Amino acid sequence: MLKGEYKVGVLGATGTVGQRFILHLHNHPFFKLVALGASSRSAGKAYRDVTKWKQVKQIPESVQRMQVEECTVEHFQQCDIVFSGLDHDVAGPIEDALRNAHVAVFSNAKNYRRDPLVPLVVPLINTSHYSVLPAQQKSLGLTKGYIVANANCSTTALVVPLAALEKAFGPLEQVQATTLQAISGSGYPGLPSLDILDNVVPYIGSEEDKMEWETYKILGGVSAQNDAFDYHAQSPLTVSATCNRVPVIDGHTVCAGVKFASKVKPSPQQVMEALSAYTCDAQHVGAPSAPQQVITVHQEQDRPQPRLDRDHQNGAGVNVGRVRGDALFDIKFVVLANNVQIGAATSSVMNAEVAALQGYV
Amino acid sequence: MLKGEYKVGVLGATGTVGQRFILHLHNHPFFKLVALGASSRSAGKAYRDVTKWKQVKQIPESVQRMQVEECTVEHFQQCDIVFSGLDHDVAGPIEDALRNAHVAVFSNAKNYRRDPLVPLVVPLINTSHYSVLPAQQKSLGLTKGYIVANANCSTTALVVPLAALEKAFGPLEQVQATTLQAISGSGYPGLPSLDILDNVVPYIGSEEDKMEWETYKILGGVSAQNDAFDYHAQSPLTVSATCNRVPVIDGHTVCAGVKFASKVKPSPQQVMEALSAYTCDAQHVGAPSAPQQVITVHQEQDRPQPRLDRDHQNGAGVNVGRVRGDALFDIKFVVLANNVQIGAATSSVMNAEVAALQGYV
Amino acid sequence: MLKGEYKVGVLGATGTVGQRFILHLHNHPFFKLVALGASSRSAGKAYRDVTKWKQVKQIPESVQRMQVEECTVEHFQQCDIVFSGLDHDVAGPIEDALRNAHVAVFSNAKNYRRDPLVPLVVPLINTSHYSVLPAQQKSLGLTKGYIVANANCSTTALVVPLAALEKAFGPLEQVQATTLQAISGSGYPGLPSLDILDNVVPYIGSEEDKMEWETYKILGGVSAQNDAFDYHAQSPLTVSATCNRVPVIDGHTVCAGVKFASKVKPSPQQVMEALSAYTCDAQHVGAPSAPQQVITVHQEQDRPQPRLDRDHQNGAGVNVGRVRGDALFDIKFVVLANNVQIGAATSSVMNAEVAALQGYV
Amino acid sequence: MLKGEYKVGVLGATGTVGQRFILHLHNHPFFKLVALGASSRSAGKAYRDVTKWKQVKQIPESVQRMQVEECTVEHFQQCDIVFSGLDHDVAGPIEDALRNAHVAVFSNAKNYRRDPLVPLVVPLINTSHYSVLPAQQKSLGLTKGYIVANANCSTTALVVPLAALEKAFGPLEQVQATTLQAISGSGYPGLPSLDILDNVVPYIGSEEDKMEWETYKILGGVSAQNDAFDYHAQSPLTVSATCNRVPVIDGHTVCAGVKFASKVKPSPQQVMEALSAYTCDAQHVGAPSAPQQVITVHQEQDRPQPRLDRDHQNGAGVNVGRVRGDALFDIKFVVLANNVQIGAATSSVMNAEVAALQGYV
Repeated sequence: MLKGEYKVGVLGATGTVGQRFILHLHNHPFFKLVALGASSRSAGKAYRDVTKWKQVKQIPESVQRMQVEECTVEHFQQCDIVFSGLDHDVAGPIEDALRNAHVAVFSNAKNYRRDPLVPLVVPLINTSHYSVLPAQQKSLGLTKGYIVANANCSTTALVVPLAALEKAFGPLEQVQATTLQAISGSGYPGLPSLDILDNVVPYIGSEEDKMEWETYKILGGVSAQNDAFDYHAQSPLTVSATCNRVPVIDGHTVCAGVKFASKVKPSPQQVMEALSAYTCDAQHVGAPSAPQQVITVHQEQDRPQPRLDRDHQNGAGVNVGRVRGDALFDIKFVVLANNVQIGAATSSVMNAEVAALQGYV
Repeated sequence: MLKGEYKVGVLGATGTVGQRFILHLHNHPFFKLVALGASSRSAGKAYRDVTKWKQVKQIPESVQRMQVEECTVEHFQQCDIVFSGLDHDVAGPIEDALRNAHVAVFSNAKNYRRDPLVPLVVPLINTSHYSVLPAQQKSLGLTKGYIVANANCSTTALVVPLAALEKAFGPLEQVQATTLQAISGSGYPGLPSLDILDNVVPYIGSEEDKMEWETYKILGGVSAQNDAFDYHAQSPLTVSATCNRVPVIDGHTVCAGVKFASKVKPSPQQVMEALSAYTCDAQHVGAPSAPQQVITVHQEQDRPQPRLDRDHQNGAGVNVGRVRGDALFDIKFVVLANNVQIGAATSSVMNAEVAALQGYV
Repeated sequence: MLKGEYKVGVLGATGTVGQRFILHLHNHPFFKLVALGASSRSAGKAYRDVTKWKQVKQIPESVQRMQVEECTVEHFQQCDIVFSGLDHDVAGPIEDALRNAHVAVFSNAKNYRRDPLVPLVVPLINTSHYSVLPAQQKSLGLTKGYIVANANCSTTALVVPLAALEKAFGPLEQVQATTLQAISGSGYPGLPSLDILDNVVPYIGSEEDKMEWETYKILGGVSAQNDAFDYHAQSPLTVSATCNRVPVIDGHTVCAGVKFASKVKPSPQQVMEALSAYTCDAQHVGAPSAPQQVITVHQEQDRPQPRLDRDHQNGAGVNVGRVRGDALFDIKFVVLANNVQIGAATSSVMNAEVAALQGYV
Repeated sequence: MLKGEYKVGVLGATGTVGQRFILHLHNHPFFKLVALGASSRSAGKAYRDVTKWKQVKQIPESVQRMQVEECTVEHFQQCDIVFSGLDHDVAGPIEDALRNAHVAVFSNAKNYRRDPLVPLVVPLINTSHYSVLPAQQKSLGLTKGYIVANANCSTTALVVPLAALEKAFGPLEQVQATTLQAISGSGYPGLPSLDILDNVVPYIGSEEDKMEWETYKILGGVSAQNDAFDYHAQSPLTVSATCNRVPVIDGHTVCAGVKFASKVKPSPQQVMEALSAYTCDAQHVGAPSAPQQVITVHQEQDRPQPRLDRDHQNGAGVNVGRVRGDALFDIKFVVLANNVQIGAATSSVMNAEVAALQGYV
C-alpha cells in the first residue's frame, strides 16, 4: 500500500525531540528526510553548526550539512509528512498552516491533543482513530493534510497495558497511577540540576490532568459516523494520577492499580499472559519502528528498572512487572516506558508509518 | 513525673542506626548514655576505633573513647533503658534477654512488631498503646522490663497524617500509598550504587506488607482490658501500598489517597487545617525530642521535597503537601518523613521519653 | 573597635547567593539587615512573595515581610555596608554607584576582582590587603566607601592551604590543581540536570584562568606605599588549574600538588602540622563567622568527602586530607571547601566583619 | 593466519566482567564460547539461573541454558583460550593451572600484571610485548599456554594518548594525571550508594600506585633477547597519579598534563593531529573488536563527557579533548575511556584476537 518514498521534514529540529526525530528518520526505509526547521536564528545555516547535539549517537553524516530553514509553509509544503518537535508555545499556528498546505502533520506538541477531530494516537493502541481524519479534513474544507497528535509521555506508559487489559478482559472501571518520571521528560535545559539531585519533586505542572484526560480519549472509541471520539463513554472509567519527578535520565516508571468493570476478575497469571499476548496494528501492517513485543512482562520481582530496561527494543515497546493482586484494586503492576522513545519521537514516527502503510498519506 | 536521670545503652552502636542513637542521646536532658554494644569483634575497644562513622555531625567527644561491649545481659542490665539498633537477624534473643533482666527495651528492629503484646508505637500517634505494657509483663511473669517497637520507616511517614485525619474526621475506609524511598532506608552498605544511580527499583522486600499490616496495628485501639490491640477492628480499613527505591539519600516520600468512612467528606482546606492543628501526647508531656509542629503543611504546589524539607525540626515531624480532592479517593496528598530520624532513631528515643515522662520506666 | 551596630543591605537578595547572605545576616551580633535589593520586577513587594526560596533552612521570620527595593543608591545609601550577590552582568555600575555614595561594598561578583586597587580577599588569608583601601578611596576622591571583592569559590578552596604552607615553609614555586566542583557553583537555575546526572563536565568557562590569576593576587603582598598589589612578585609562582563539574550539590574538591621554592622540603607530617596550626586575622579579631579551626586535617585516607565534611563549622573553614609525598611535586593533598559558604556568602560576611572590627567601616 | 575457530571459555562468568565477556563473545567471528566457569555454588546449573544479570543488553539466547562449571583444569582444558574475569583473591592459582594445561589465558585480574614475564597489554598500544611469550613458556617448561594480563581500567585510559604522543614526539618525561572514575570500576556490589550519591570519594585503594607502575611497563620496550620488559628505562619518566571516585556509572575521566623529553615541543594543534592519526596493530591485523579510530579527538571545549561519549565505537577506543598548552606542563588534555569496555573485557578479547591473528594461539 506504500506509495514509494515519502518526503518528510522535522520542525524544531535542533531541540531534543527534533534530534531524536533525526536519529529515527535519517536511515528510514521509506521516509526521506528533506527538510529541517528551526527558529529564524538558525535558518540558513548548516545543521551541525546551530545544534547543541545531546545524543549518545552521533549526528548522522547525511544530516550534518543539511541547511536549516525557518518553520514556514514555504519551506515545508514540499513534504508529504512533517514531524513536529516544536514547543507548544509556537507549535499551534505553524502546524495548522502546514495542514492547510496539505501536509500530514504528526505532532509531539500538546496543542491539538484536545481538538475534537484530531486523533490522539499511541501507535501501540489506537491507530484505528485515523478513521476520523476525513471528518477533520472535511471540517476544514481540505482534501489532503491533517494533524495527528501523539500522547504525553507519562500517558503513553500507562495506557499501553490498560489497552491490553481492556482488549482481553473488558472495560476498566478504576485506574490509579503514580508516576516516577525521568528528567528528560522536561526537555532541555528543563529541570535545573539543583532541583533534582538527591531529590524528588512531587509535582509536574498539568501532568496529572493530562494523564487522566488523555487516557479517556485514547482508550475510547470513535462514533459510528467516524466524526467524533467517545472518550470511553460506553463504560465509565475513573483515572486518578499522581506525578513525580525523580533523578533518572530516561524512562518513566508508573505504579498502577486497576479495577475491572466485569465481576469476573482475571488472575495475575491471566493478566501476565494477556499482556504478553497483546499485539497492535503497527505490528500487523509492518511498521518499521514497531517493537517485536509490545509489552515485555518481567518475572523478576524487582523489574522493570529504567536503567536496565528502557532501551530494550530501542525503547519502542513498554515493560510491565510486579503483576499482583491487591486488596483495594483487582490488579497492581509497574510499567516502564522510555519517555524519549515510545513516549515521544518513536510514537510520532510509528504513527506516520502506520498512516502511510494504511494509505492515509 | 521523671525519676531523675535514666541510664541508657545502645545496642548495635557501630551501625548507622546506632550512630544516630548516639547523636540523639549524648547530650540528652535526662537520658545518660552509659553503655554501647556491638559484636564481639568490637568488644573491649574504644568506640571511635571500631566505628566507620558515616554521619555529617562528628562523633561526640564524650563517646569517642567509650568502651564497646558485647550485647549481653551482663553489660546492659545496669541500664534503665536500652535502645536497639540491631539487625533483625540477631535482635530477637538479645532484646528478649534484656527484657527478662528488667530492662525497658525500645527497639528499631522488626522482630517483635507483630507480637500481640508488644506496642508498635509511632510517638507522634499512639503512645497510648503503652497501656498494654502491664499485660506484656504479666504474660512473662515480669514486674519490670518490656519491649516497645517503633514502626518501619515508610509506615511511619504514612500513618502520621492518617492518624490526624481519623482524629478529625472519623475512621478511614481506604488508603492507597505509593512510596519513593531513600537509599538510607536500606542501611549500610545497603543498596549498591550501581543499582540505584540513574535508576528506580520498584520493589523493596516485604515492605508493602509491613506498611499495610503495621498501619492497622498503629491506627487501631486497645482492648478494654488493656491486654490486646484491636487492629482497627472497629471500622474496616483497607490499605494498599506500593514501594519504590529512588536515588535520594534521606527522606521517604509517600503519595497517598484516602477515602473516609463517613458520608460527609472534608474539603482539602479542612484537611489542611486538621493536619496543621494535630498535636500528640509526646508534645503534651514535654518529650524533648517532640517536634513543635507534628505535621507541617506546605502550600507551594511542588513541596514537600526530600532535600529541602527532610531536616526541618531535625526530622522529628512530618511534612504534607499537595492536599487536593480526587475522583477516585476523597483526598490525595504527599507526605515526606525523614526515614533516619522520625522513621528510626528519633522514634525510639521519643517513645522512651514519653514512657519515662508517663512513669512507664 | 566596633562602632555599635552597622546597617547592612543585600543586593540580589532573591538569588541563591542573596538567600545565603540573608541566612548569615538575619541574626548577626552587630550587622542589622535593613535593606533588600532585587530587580524592578520584585521591587515594592514582600520578600517572601518574590523569592523562590531554595535553602534547607527556612526564610527567617524577620525577613519574610521585608519590602524588596530596586538596587539603587536611593534605597541603599542608608547602609554602612552592602553585600552584593548580584550577577556580574549587572553588578558593575550598581556597586560603583554605592561606593561613590560612601557605602562599603563587599561583593561576591567578579567585576572588580582584577581592579588594581580593589582587595581580593579570602578572609581566612589576606584581610591585610585592606591596607590598600585608602589608596582606592584616594584614587576616586572618596573619604568613605569602597569595594572589597571575595574570591571565586574554587580559588578559595585552593588558596587557604597554600597560604598556610607559604606561611610555614616559605614561597611555593609550582601548584597543580584539578577540581571536582559542585553544581551549586553554577548558580540557579545553573546546570541543567540532563548535563550532569551520571556525568562529568570537564570544563567550566574561564574558571581555570580565574584560579590561576586570583591565586597570584591573594597570595601576593602589598606595595610598601600600600597603593598596589604585588601578585606574588617577590617569588615566581606557576599555577596550573584544571576544572571539572561533578554531580555533587555543595562542596568543591581540589586535588593539589605543590613544589616549594626552598631546597629544604617539609615532610607530609610537618605539612599536616602546619596546616592544623594555621590561624588567621579573622580569628584573632574575633569575627563572629570565623571558624574555630581554619584547616581541618583529616587522617582517614578517604576523607575529606563533600557530603560528609562540607558542613563542618557551617562550612566556614576548609578540609584537607591525603597529605602525602610525590615523585613529581613535593607534596600532594586534597582540599574540600563549601563553595556556597566559605566560597561565597560566608567570605563576604567575614570580610565585612573583619573590616568593621579593624575600623575600616 | 587464523587457524579456524578457537574454543574459548570464561572464568568468573556470572560476575560483571564475566557478563561483559559473554556479550563480547557470544557472536564472535572466530571465537566459539564453549565453557562458562563460576564458583562451586553455581556449578552444574544453567547460566541464567545462577546469574543476577545486570547488563542493558539481555542474556544471549545461546548462553542462557549453558551449564556453568567449576573453574578447574578439567572443565577448561578443552579451550584454546580462556578469559578470566575472576576476582584477584581466587584468580592466581586457577590461571596458573590452566596455563600449565596449555591454555592461553587472557586475564583481567591483577595477579600476574607485575610478573616479569607476563605481558601487560593494552591492545591499542603494546601487543608487540607478545614477543616475550616464548620466554614465559620457556621459564615454565611449556610449549603451549601462557598468561597475558590487561591493564587496570584507569591506566588504560591514560596510556593510550601517552603512547600516541611518544610515537609522534618522542619520550615523555613527566605525566600528571587526576582521575574521576566511574562506580562500575569497583565491581558489583562495589561501592555502597550511600558513599557516592551527592559525593566524591578522593581515594581508591592502591589505584594511584597501579597507574604509575603499569604505565612504565606498558609504555616501555622489550629487551633485545625478548626475555624481559624495560619499564621505560631508555628515558626516565615520572608519573604522578591522583584517583577519585565520582557518581558516574561508566566511563573514567582522566585530566592529564605531560612534559616531553625533547626540547622541541609540539603545539596543541600538532598534538591533536598526532592523536587523531594514531593507529595500532590491533587495527592493522584486523582484530574484530578494534575501533575504527583509536583516539577520537573532540573539538568542543566541554567534551569528552562520560554519559555522551563512553559508548562511541562500543567503548573500544578512547576520547581526548581540551588539548591545550600549559604553564607548568607542555600540554594538558582530558581523556575519557569506557572502563567496562576498553578498560576491561574489550581489552582482553582484543588482546586474544591479536594473539590469534598473529599466530600466538
